[in-house]
Amino acid sequence: MPGSVEIINTGNELLEGRTLNTNGQWIARRCSSMGISVRRITVVGDSLEDISSALREALSRRPDLIIITGGLGPTPDDMTSRAMAHALGRELELNEEALEMVRRAYGVPELGPAREKLALLPEGARPLENRLGKAPGILVEHGGTRIIALPGVPDEMKAMFEDHVLPLLEELSGGLIRFEAHFLAYGVRESDIADLLEAVRERYPEVYVKTHPRVEEGRSYLEIYISTLAPSSSEARSRMEKAIHELSEGISGRGGSFKPFRPTQ
Amino acid sequence: MPGSVEIINTGNELLEGRTLNTNGQWIARRCSSMGISVRRITVVGDSLEDISSALREALSRRPDLIIITGGLGPTPDDMTSRAMAHALGRELELNEEALEMVRRAYGVPELGPAREKLALLPEGARPLENRLGKAPGILVEHGGTRIIALPGVPDEMKAMFEDHVLPLLEELSGGLIRFEAHFLAYGVRESDIADLLEAVRERYPEVYVKTHPRVEEGRSYLEIYISTLAPSSSEARSRMEKAIHELSEGISGRGGSFKPFRPTQ
Repeated sequence: MPGSVEIINTGNELLEGRTLNTNGQWIARRCSSMGISVRRITVVGDSLEDISSALREALSRRPDLIIITGGLGPTPDDMTSRAMAHALGRELELNEEALEMVRRAYGVPELGPAREKLALLPEGARPLENRLGKAPGILVEHGGTRIIALPGVPDEMKAMFEDHVLPLLEELSGGLIRFEAHFLAYGVRESDIADLLEAVRERYPEVYVKTHPRVEEGRSYLEIYISTLAPSSSEARSRMEKAIHELSEGISGRGGSFKPFRPTQ
Repeated sequence: MPGSVEIINTGNELLEGRTLNTNGQWIARRCSSMGISVRRITVVGDSLEDISSALREALSRRPDLIIITGGLGPTPDDMTSRAMAHALGRELELNEEALEMVRRAYGVPELGPAREKLALLPEGARPLENRLGKAPGILVEHGGTRIIALPGVPDEMKAMFEDHVLPLLEELSGGLIRFEAHFLAYGVRESDIADLLEAVRERYPEVYVKTHPRVEEGRSYLEIYISTLAPSSSEARSRMEKAIHELSEGISGRGGSFKPFRPTQ
């Protein structure tokens, strides 16, 4: 059974809709492609109370990993580290290893209080090297859940994800990979094939099927997404082929057409 | 004091990162521009248990309004209405007004069970007309919080937002509007101006200031976002001008430059 992840994205700009939450999607996509299920994505503002309650609530659901983005910078509204300490009931302490990383990042031996803040970590936490920016990430364990905080700047977040999160995901994935296929169905509506979908889902519980109604230039159709988690592509193919065959037959039998499709994103 | 909103976006495609949560951003932007604060955005999958716990948790924070998107369609994995009933401890019932809307939408008097499902609403809920699609939205009140469920299809969601949510937001906004200004600062880093930001925030508590570090073609700079909620633009201007002046002086005094900027999105 592959592991589970929760994502917490922080930042008032997300709650005000000034910024699209591409960090959340990018992380979700990466986890999901390795067969690791993201159970929830929570967006909260730059508030000590809101970040720490989101973290406490996520911990209560006992995921294997919680990934937090944003709020690691030097300004007073950057409060992820403090919120982590608060949620875990730990003290904030100046972490020597983090201090060394921050000194190296700024290229100076003496840091003022704003820069020193980047090295204030919850007790027992480990700093994570940030190759592209100044603020180290944070890794801390609590009751069987690992919590990783990454910067909100997308390039820094992505580089640190590759460096520090990927090895944990590989450990959690148990060697499973998600295999996917996309189809388009014309001439049938969701309500016409609801019973067919239910039958296919019951017969092939390891195959995930989801329909999305679309409209293009006034023409309605369904996009059908099919996936499975498998250790190999041959195993995935044999599972999915049967389900796809039944869907195709069922849709033709209802007067519709069904064909493979390659999505743009 | 303007009202507060929480947003719950449902759909496995969001948790798997196959779809970017543009619905969440769009709704957040609309609320925020009317001065209504979005306190949290929660993304959960197509799971009865996950949707209903997200809703129960949101209710416990007592926002004025909870907006849910997705999961209103005819297929078995569309379970928002059932999850609402579950969270509120109410029965699902066939709503006559909703049934009429669904019949009109399909243009037929007799509905099969998949289509009839679109008219199954929590007891005491009111269906909301969907001009562009089949599934009615749902409005229900619970302990001072209004809960509105809208479809996940963006065009339908937006049209129904204008029809049914906007009037509620106008009521909640108390006539306040958000006024915004954007600036770019070169030659200073966040850590150089952390104390300046803190001083400006303390002196002008009604003015919101946030910095975002950016890098473009190897050159680092700061984007500075400034906003305030005010009943008129003259009131907003007089408040913001002083804060902007202090920021500009402070940044110049630290060897940086500061100029207005128009963001692309």
